Amino acid sequence: MQEREMQNPTESEAYALRRARLVQMHPSDIAAEIENLELDEIREVFRDLNDDKTADVIPELPQELQTELMENMRLERVTEIIPEMLSDEAADALGDVSPERLHDIMEKLPSEEYEEISDLMEYPEDSAGGIMQKEVHAIKDSLTLAEAREAIRKDEDQDQEDVSSIYVYAIDDSQRLKGVLRLRDLLFRDLRLLVSKVMVTEVRSISVNADQEEIANLFQKYNYSSLPVVDDFGKLVGRVTSDDVLDVIQEEATEDMQRMVGISGDESVSTPWRRSVRNRLPWLCVNLCTGFGIAWVVSMFEPAIEQYAILAFFLPIVGLLGGNAGNQTLTIVVRSLALGEIDDDEWKPLLLKEVITSFTTGFAIGTLAGLASWLWIGMPILGLVVFLAMLLNMIAAALAGVLVPFGLRSLKIDPALASSIMVTTATDVIGFFIFLSLATLAINTFSL
Amino acid sequence: MQEREMQNPTESEAYALRRARLVQMHPSDIAAEIENLELDEIREVFRDLNDDKTADVIPELPQELQTELMENMRLERVTEIIPEMLSDEAADALGDVSPERLHDIMEKLPSEEYEEISDLMEYPEDSAGGIMQKEVHAIKDSLTLAEAREAIRKDEDQDQEDVSSIYVYAIDDSQRLKGVLRLRDLLFRDLRLLVSKVMVTEVRSISVNADQEEIANLFQKYNYSSLPVVDDFGKLVGRVTSDDVLDVIQEEATEDMQRMVGISGDESVSTPWRRSVRNRLPWLCVNLCTGFGIAWVVSMFEPAIEQYAILAFFLPIVGLLGGNAGNQTLTIVVRSLALGEIDDDEWKPLLLKEVITSFTTGFAIGTLAGLASWLWIGMPILGLVVFLAMLLNMIAAALAGVLVPFGLRSLKIDPALASSIMVTTATDVIGFFIFLSLATLAINTFSL
Repeated sequence: MQEREMQNPTESEAYALRRARLVQMHPSDIAAEIENLELDEIREVFRDLNDDKTADVIPELPQELQTELMENMRLERVTEIIPEMLSDEAADALGDVSPERLHDIMEKLPSEEYEEISDLMEYPEDSAGGIMQKEVHAIKDSLTLAEAREAIRKDEDQDQEDVSSIYVYAIDDSQRLKGVLRLRDLLFRDLRLLVSKVMVTEVRSISVNADQEEIANLFQKYNYSSLPVVDDFGKLVGRVTSDDVLDVIQEEATEDMQRMVGISGDESVSTPWRRSVRNRLPWLCVNLCTGFGIAWVVSMFEPAIEQYAILAFFLPIVGLLGGNAGNQTLTIVVRSLALGEIDDDEWKPLLLKEVITSFTTGFAIGTLAGLASWLWIGMPILGLVVFLAMLLNMIAAALAGVLVPFGLRSLKIDPALASSIMVTTATDVIGFFIFLSLATLAINTFSL
Repeated sequence: MQEREMQNPTESEAYALRRARLVQMHPSDIAAEIENLELDEIREVFRDLNDDKTADVIPELPQELQTELMENMRLERVTEIIPEMLSDEAADALGDVSPERLHDIMEKLPSEEYEEISDLMEYPEDSAGGIMQKEVHAIKDSLTLAEAREAIRKDEDQDQEDVSSIYVYAIDDSQRLKGVLRLRDLLFRDLRLLVSKVMVTEVRSISVNADQEEIANLFQKYNYSSLPVVDDFGKLVGRVTSDDVLDVIQEEATEDMQRMVGISGDESVSTPWRRSVRNRLPWLCVNLCTGFGIAWVVSMFEPAIEQYAILAFFLPIVGLLGGNAGNQTLTIVVRSLALGEIDDDEWKPLLLKEVITSFTTGFAIGTLAGLASWLWIGMPILGLVVFLAMLLNMIAAALAGVLVPFGLRSLKIDPALASSIMVTTATDVIGFFIFLSLATLAINTFSL
């Protein structure tokens, strides 16, 4: 009894302290702090935060958790929080919510938010429409600078997102993008001038259907910090900012790395193990089939292996180095394709370069391996067979490393997809076939 | 003769057309167009561009080409171009230039550029100091808004970099960062107010020594578009912008991917083959040694393989699936470490999760593999051996996939470094040892 009395006040004190601490933190830090809590605990934390803060925290949480919250928080609270979120973040949060629940939520939203969010939800997730936000300063190009300033001041009062950048786009009466207004014009030019006179008219814009990877490459190449998004009629519909692009770039790099080794869903260290199993098992099964294919190739040479069990010692070396060399080439190619450094039709000179490179590394590695094998087993002919198999397999590895990703690309498949598995399989099959064929030839020729 | 006359004007016409086209292009596009030309041709193109445009093109070229240009262009031209570049871009361009040439160039620069660039060149390339630019609007916090505006107007006239964002930092008399001035204050507040009254005083800044990967994670987590950089005394020394961070993120992802497969230098599809050989050969040699280690493990089981050559068929399957599963785990771990999603001391729960995951996938794959082996060879005991070897090797693969990167990290080595090679080696050694041990045990126990 004594103990319980001691404990209770301390617990609630610690709890109060924690709440007080959370309330003062940056939304991203709050998200990091609470993302591993149970759903009920998170809802409890949100009860202490006002709608505005909650609206800032939710987009920083993992996608699945956002969905769960949208499903399980009180409907009234959800419909109060959503209008406080940026439209793109709201659309993302609601993206995977069940149709019935989504209907309930959308029905209760103010009409402006309703339209913006339902517009955004129609675009594919990985298009400009899917990552852009609708919030943008759009002013008529027929206004004076003084009128433009006043219009922006009103907008800014509502929505105080950024401290140091304001993007002001000029549109005509049909909402078509006409130009961009520089801040220095707004700050330093005669306020009676018309927007259309001072705006920059050469504005790069992106189509609402553009792929997010292309957009990322555009941002990186030209160092933009924001680009306007237009629909098929040239109407301004939103903007993509560099922080959206940062997310895209990290996401695409992660996805490529994971796809290469055959992980079929987005995964992070915090993914539950059941989902990890589902992500990884499919390609492992494929790999099992290719593995039996490789075993079958080896089995064709059973007589040779029966005669010389030592041949089995060298299979791992041939396979390992071929796989490694193939993956080196593959990594360079997949990454260059993703970064837009190389086009689909530029594979020929690249193939030539990779063959030359692999011939050189193959000659070096093959020589070392051949000499080592000779010394170890004491059969010069085995050294020669190892040398030739290594050299040829590393050239084959280079071919596979280039042709697999370009081949996938020409089939309109992501060039990263399970590419490492395919290349490793190819180098194993080819390497073992070459090595065991040469060994059989040597055995037969020299009647060993 | 006729032909030559026909050809010559056409050639020079085409050349003139091309020059006219180039002059009007965006600097990044010019860079993309000329980066594969010979050095002399590039210099010829630069003769048609004014200093300002040339200064914009150079930073977009590959690093090596920038160095070559700085070494080989006329000294007078170089010293005219450098002051037109942003300080961080100039420091990067000059980073690998020979000391004598660098001395000649720096000597001829105006003193302001000289100081900014030599300051920047002292910071490590991958620190905040190495990626920041010195150009920043810094105003005394004792000014009025009107005076601040005037100061910024003067700065802007000199250096018209960005259209839509102006970052204004407030400093005290000792240059220490005190706050940031919001654009809306500059646009809409009473101009007689003091900067110190309206500025935001809670400003996140980064230390000039901060690592670029940490900075990238900070930008991504908090969606900054620019952050001030301060030295050890809190003095404002520059700023890092989101386009610097975009480059860092791409670079770090590329580096991690390449390092995992043992490519020791930065490589792209345009890297000359000689350098590719130098980049890839070292770890291939290490891999050759580990390959012989694996071969030696297999050789310990020579009697078993001599008796049953069929055992050799299953080595590739065991090796392939162990390697693939290990690389799946490894990829998740390396990426999460790079993104700062997991801390150095959080490996234990992760290890547990990976063991559970791999037990599940291993059980599934092992069962399939065991049944297939039984059906193929017709020996139920072989099926059991394959099943057990698969299961145990996939658990070993998970252990290797977690422990290799965390182990490297605890040795203060990049967790990506050759990690894929190490994991593949580990799973081969362990897998073959388990499989051949179990096979030997089965042979001896059942006197097969």
